[in-house]
Amino acid sequence: MPNPDWIGVDWGTTNLRAWGMCRTGGVLAEATSNQGMAKLGPEAYEPVLLDLVGNWLPETGRIPVVVCGMAGAKGAWQMSPYREAPCPPLLASQSVQPLTVDERLQVSILPGIRQSRPDVDLMRGEETQVAGYLSMVPDFDGVICLPGTHSKWVHVSAGEIVSFRTFMTGEIYDLVKRESVLRDLVDENGGDWDPVEFQNAVETQIARPELLMARLFSIRAAALVSNLGPGRAAARLSGTLVGAELAGARPYWLGRDLILIGEKRLSNLYAAGLRRLGQTPRFQDSAAMTIAGLAEANRGFAGDPESARVTGGVGPKAA
Amino acid sequence: MPNPDWIGVDWGTTNLRAWGMCRTGGVLAEATSNQGMAKLGPEAYEPVLLDLVGNWLPETGRIPVVVCGMAGAKGAWQMSPYREAPCPPLLASQSVQPLTVDERLQVSILPGIRQSRPDVDLMRGEETQVAGYLSMVPDFDGVICLPGTHSKWVHVSAGEIVSFRTFMTGEIYDLVKRESVLRDLVDENGGDWDPVEFQNAVETQIARPELLMARLFSIRAAALVSNLGPGRAAARLSGTLVGAELAGARPYWLGRDLILIGEKRLSNLYAAGLRRLGQTPRFQDSAAMTIAGLAEANRGFAGDPESARVTGGVGPKAA
Repeated sequence: MPNPDWIGVDWGTTNLRAWGMCRTGGVLAEATSNQGMAKLGPEAYEPVLLDLVGNWLPETGRIPVVVCGMAGAKGAWQMSPYREAPCPPLLASQSVQPLTVDERLQVSILPGIRQSRPDVDLMRGEETQVAGYLSMVPDFDGVICLPGTHSKWVHVSAGEIVSFRTFMTGEIYDLVKRESVLRDLVDENGGDWDPVEFQNAVETQIARPELLMARLFSIRAAALVSNLGPGRAAARLSGTLVGAELAGARPYWLGRDLILIGEKRLSNLYAAGLRRLGQTPRFQDSAAMTIAGLAEANRGFAGDPESARVTGGVGPKAA
Repeated sequence: MPNPDWIGVDWGTTNLRAWGMCRTGGVLAEATSNQGMAKLGPEAYEPVLLDLVGNWLPETGRIPVVVCGMAGAKGAWQMSPYREAPCPPLLASQSVQPLTVDERLQVSILPGIRQSRPDVDLMRGEETQVAGYLSMVPDFDGVICLPGTHSKWVHVSAGEIVSFRTFMTGEIYDLVKRESVLRDLVDENGGDWDPVEFQNAVETQIARPELLMARLFSIRAAALVSNLGPGRAAARLSGTLVGAELAGARPYWLGRDLILIGEKRLSNLYAAGLRRLGQTPRFQDSAAMTIAGLAEANRGFAGDPESARVTGGVGPKAA
């Protein structure tokens, strides 16, 4: 394998992914690790990174390493302060460069984005995926939904993140499935997973959003006395929570061009719910958008004028 | 201490409480244990009970032991089948009598109540507290709210449970506080617990119930970037979830006589939210209502005609 020209890293809470990249945006190598931010003190990041990508490094000279995600959170590798929305999704000049022991590493950690109005909100990592999409469709005017542990709905216009809202849907799903009184009653691989059950739950929840906490318990009641099997119970739980999110996100999806960026199975569920509401979202792969966003940031660091439109400015010149 | 005439037991999921009772309803002794249903196989119940109340038993003869709660669930001591609402809260003749090795024990496990319409729902234990309240106020027509891990709203009229609805509020509060990304940011003993923060969260949630999953995440955002301290964060989390429940329970509390039966701190929070909505609930102590309900059941077993009104009939005669 030829040495990469630069390295892109998505450093999440529980995992990290790294890509060895060539100048033109092609992926030469990929590596993943479970050494997410939650497990690491500040001094552990460089060793973990070297462990993962050490054999991609040049013998001499420096290689740019562009990092998005939780490595820039407070108490992580080095705090990369939030930028304030409305703003372009990336602004390479505001990244931070942690000192490294290995002089071949030239690390830049991208900032997250925060919002003060209408509600306080935060993102770290998703802005890079939004930038990746805008690098392909610079004139996009619409909404990008990133379903996941903390789902984001992002209104994008004129190359900027105008506003966004986060829903704790995925995390609540996991907690209820693993830790609540539903834990032995719900199994999405239960064999009887049922798309109709999912759709009915979405619609029931959207019709009466105030009943979310009651609907959750009613899954237990139905499992105990109405023979609701574990797969159908999972479909009902998932539909209930996705429905709750779609009800809350209505101002985002209603009448807007809509892109879903996320893991495939989850994106399909959101799309099924949205289609029933008369929306026709389009899909983009989550990793591909992250890579495209990291590449956009790297072009910004390298002073490529083509990137100015998305990154909102030109960053420090790479060595 | 004189030997009790009978023993009442509230066997919950995580704990159990037993009371040594005299015929007239006075409490002679009390004992608690952490040997709740979740920890026990069917054969463990009798030894746990003997461990807890063995020294209350007579040397010879049998003593009635009236048990409510999860000991009657499937897979617990012995399944005590659900009765179907609408129905009186107790019907002593439908209890089950598990065989015991110790012949001094004459155990009866009270049934739970289920509902098929408008939604499938279940209770086990709360029906005994409702019966306790009706033993004092037999003509009560209104709603009893039992806040807790699985809060119940129970519509009572003409001595019957007409309908009820369960909300998973308390369990979600505990899961979010202990296990979610809010876990290090929320502490109800944090010193800065703030009743105004609680009230604002109740009202915000009632105004926009579809935003529950977003409000949960916004507590994290506010803690990270707006200096929301752990006590105020707990108040906001609690107000958000209580507000979500009050929004969903509106058909129960609106324009009805309203009784709160629950742990004191929690009942006060619900009352604060309800008062802001123009309701004036009255309070009853949870343990006192359980004891009164168990006493009512025991009178039913003993063939006391005075109990027929609440228990809906006379049960098997005690020895």
